[in-house]
Amino acid sequence: MPGKTLRSKTAIRRLHERVSAEFGREMTIAFLLQDWDDPYNVGGMFRVADAVGAKELILTGHTPVPPHPQIHVTSMGHHRRIPFRSFDSHEEAVARLKLEGYHLVAVEIAEDAPHYKQYAYPEKLCLVIGNEVNGVYNRVLSMCDGAVFIPMAGKGKSLNVVVAAAIVAYEAWQSPLPEEAQG
Amino acid sequence: MPGKTLRSKTAIRRLHERVSAEFGREMTIAFLLQDWDDPYNVGGMFRVADAVGAKELILTGHTPVPPHPQIHVTSMGHHRRIPFRSFDSHEEAVARLKLEGYHLVAVEIAEDAPHYKQYAYPEKLCLVIGNEVNGVYNRVLSMCDGAVFIPMAGKGKSLNVVVAAAIVAYEAWQSPLPEEAQG
Repeated sequence: MPGKTLRSKTAIRRLHERVSAEFGREMTIAFLLQDWDDPYNVGGMFRVADAVGAKELILTGHTPVPPHPQIHVTSMGHHRRIPFRSFDSHEEAVARLKLEGYHLVAVEIAEDAPHYKQYAYPEKLCLVIGNEVNGVYNRVLSMCDGAVFIPMAGKGKSLNVVVAAAIVAYEAWQSPLPEEAQG
Repeated sequence: MPGKTLRSKTAIRRLHERVSAEFGREMTIAFLLQDWDDPYNVGGMFRVADAVGAKELILTGHTPVPPHPQIHVTSMGHHRRIPFRSFDSHEEAVARLKLEGYHLVAVEIAEDAPHYKQYAYPEKLCLVIGNEVNGVYNRVLSMCDGAVFIPMAGKGKSLNVVVAAAIVAYEAWQSPLPEEAQG
């Protein structure tokens, strides 16, 4: 039987700090949101970015940008704290991030993409999440360093973009590197 | 450089089937949604339930129930395919599920709750996800078989309920059991 829910902010913060020291890798994480349509999803992504300690969001093409009333509904205020940059051109954004040392991994059902638990995520990682309907465009995918996919058991052909980003980001952050990949 | 995005429904289905055979455990998964406020979240949960091949959703207390226009927006139609049951009483639902052989794990920051990657999830699993603001009530938590928590690095005190449910469900489904726990 589990203990009671922790209510004290201090106790919760202390727990997260202890566990971060024990489990989470030291990483620089960013998310590139390629042509997202839905500002509620963008807001949800700011909340996930806060949770995983991400450095920034990169909003490309027509992805809605704060300030935006619908982004604010789901961001829980984190759009005011997590830095973001916006680019009209997806390709320009990808090129810029690569120059800055980011390793770009698309979350996409791409040919030969490994299972998301089988990727050796490097320390400076940008996850590329495509449009809600059309996914990551092939010209963007071709500029990425890799791609991973998330298995699905049902009839649906995709997960919500925020859910997919969170699953992969948590896996990258909370899984120890395989022995041979450690520095 | 990754290959192109798979567009053919057949190719995508074949990929998921191959990976399911290789990675996913054979499980019976359910989700109990305790007093959720937001029908958009309920819809999102139907979509996640489809993705992980869940057997059913259990909607308790004032959790909105299909048919409901806002549930339909985010469920992508899966509310019509994934079975659900609703209970006025959370405790009655939990008692019923235990009689049916479900092992109930609350996703909650509870005292002594292990990291979500450190739980030996059994084959018949119901994840209990609490209200968006108040989490899993202590009287419900005390009836669960266990609880797990998800680390957070930022200023936010919680993840979105659908995101949290998806992270834990994917971990339970896509991680091989530790040697000693296998049958």
